[in-house]
Amino acid sequence: MKPRVGKTANREFVGKLGERSIIETMKKYFDVMPESPVPFGDDVAAAPIDSECIAVLKTDMLVDKTDVPVGMSLQQAARKAIVMNVSDFAAKGVQPLAALVSLGLPRRLCEADVEEIAKGLNRGAREYGAFLVGGDTGEASDLIIAVSLYGTAIKSRLVLRSGAKADDILAVTGLFGKPPAGLRLLSGKCEVSHELNKTLVDSVFMPKARLREGLALAASGSVTSSIDSSDGLALSLHELSRMSGVGFVVDKVPIADEALRFVECCEVDALDLTLYGGEEYELVVTVDPEFWSKAEVAVEKVGGKLLPIGRVTREKTIILEINGKSSQIEARGWEHFKSEA
Amino acid sequence: MKPRVGKTANREFVGKLGERSIIETMKKYFDVMPESPVPFGDDVAAAPIDSECIAVLKTDMLVDKTDVPVGMSLQQAARKAIVMNVSDFAAKGVQPLAALVSLGLPRRLCEADVEEIAKGLNRGAREYGAFLVGGDTGEASDLIIAVSLYGTAIKSRLVLRSGAKADDILAVTGLFGKPPAGLRLLSGKCEVSHELNKTLVDSVFMPKARLREGLALAASGSVTSSIDSSDGLALSLHELSRMSGVGFVVDKVPIADEALRFVECCEVDALDLTLYGGEEYELVVTVDPEFWSKAEVAVEKVGGKLLPIGRVTREKTIILEINGKSSQIEARGWEHFKSEA
Repeated sequence: MKPRVGKTANREFVGKLGERSIIETMKKYFDVMPESPVPFGDDVAAAPIDSECIAVLKTDMLVDKTDVPVGMSLQQAARKAIVMNVSDFAAKGVQPLAALVSLGLPRRLCEADVEEIAKGLNRGAREYGAFLVGGDTGEASDLIIAVSLYGTAIKSRLVLRSGAKADDILAVTGLFGKPPAGLRLLSGKCEVSHELNKTLVDSVFMPKARLREGLALAASGSVTSSIDSSDGLALSLHELSRMSGVGFVVDKVPIADEALRFVECCEVDALDLTLYGGEEYELVVTVDPEFWSKAEVAVEKVGGKLLPIGRVTREKTIILEINGKSSQIEARGWEHFKSEA
Repeated sequence: MKPRVGKTANREFVGKLGERSIIETMKKYFDVMPESPVPFGDDVAAAPIDSECIAVLKTDMLVDKTDVPVGMSLQQAARKAIVMNVSDFAAKGVQPLAALVSLGLPRRLCEADVEEIAKGLNRGAREYGAFLVGGDTGEASDLIIAVSLYGTAIKSRLVLRSGAKADDILAVTGLFGKPPAGLRLLSGKCEVSHELNKTLVDSVFMPKARLREGLALAASGSVTSSIDSSDGLALSLHELSRMSGVGFVVDKVPIADEALRFVECCEVDALDLTLYGGEEYELVVTVDPEFWSKAEVAVEKVGGKLLPIGRVTREKTIILEINGKSSQIEARGWEHFKSEA
């Protein structure tokens, strides 16, 4: 995307700094809620209900020009706006109950477009057991779908980003690489078989939040920290590292077969695709080794899989160890604004 | 605002239909939450916490090109985005506890701009006793500030739009006309004295939600229905009428002195300004006549005023009766999209 030109072009803070820096900048000006159950910047926010129970809150915004790839229908885009939020609830092990939507609609849309958006929102919410309970619309230049989710949780059971301890097992709820491969296919940079194309593109158009897995993991009491991977596996690891004050050694690269087949056709680096891709919806968790079997069984019982990919270390470095070779996993991935600059 | 031209310009549903119709269209596709404590389309939404207590939720979105008049600072715009939401909580008598914000930022903004937005958000939240607890940012063509609010309430005490009964007293928490007069001044259509200009423009730049009044009224148990007046007094009355299945006779026009002085200078119809203006933040309530004094005292105790302007009728018409003359109050006012078309 080309930056706008004009007299303010040289001030392009938003374009240059990326989402994380903007949130850090803003946070400085926010008074902190006393006894806030969740620190600012975790996957979800929260407010106390009583001494035991908390309200879990989340807002995440879809903007067509950065979050809706070419070919994605309006219904799929609206559903995705819900799934993006559900994925964060999944990471914390919280059932979403109610969703609200603030909708910015470009003037050119017709009634059928609005109906498609409504269908997608309802579909996304119902897939994960939530209901749309309210919303707001206004005119905007872009299509904007800002979803807010609400649920409740027992405060002591909420899985934060900050609880990982040295020697915990690092695990993921599934394999990576399909959505970033799909995005590359959609941008027309490469071609693969019809069947592989469909699988990879579908992973972009119809993302699935790992809610069942997240709920099962939280209920098992075995998880020490958790995050979703919408900005990519590498950034999720760096975020867990920062919030928990630990590091990681990754000794298995969790790449999907379909992503490997894509890599073979399209001259893309497999590691790059797996670690730095983004638009992923797997959960990245750390598990107390004493309770590993409990965690594994809990996820299998809901039809999922928990895949160990490494371990938590005391040193705050994030290292990939494959075939006896060590390298740093960098803090980069797909981030709003920056990747587009 | 000029509609976009292009091949889809003839389909301009969003431009033609207005916010209310869009919400009605979408609602058809939403599954209804069982035992929802608040019907879809009231000032706030809600979800049950337990048999007595509910979570109160609201999202309302500010878009610079429709909601931020020329001359309003970014800090004021961000504060307004919070106040818009607080006003709806005020109408329901609910204390907001936590706020989240989804921020769409145009790429041209600089760091100081982002800081101003953060200050405005925090200021708005703290003015009304809430805290910013989370948020999301993304790039957008317009400045978008979608705020979500959370609070809790005793279900049986929530004041809905649907409880007005014939012979209840119709009342407002303050006088109307200043914000629409201020908006006209900002558009450069007229000039008034410096002092009057400042008062009227300030009412636009620094709106105040009637939270103290709303909380006091709800606690008094005297209010049968309530709504805020951000779309104007006339539309608020039509909405209460529709939701309660009643009508109104308005026999006092609640116009502010400053608005009257504006009317004298600027050849604007006083009734038009008061009824059909919009951007107002007074509460419009109906009060059980038996408890009128209780309601009046409750509002006075928090430093406000409750002004009777008419009564609720069985006939579902909304009539203005002034100086022995009757006329219909029309269902029009300031509405997103439509007024701009």
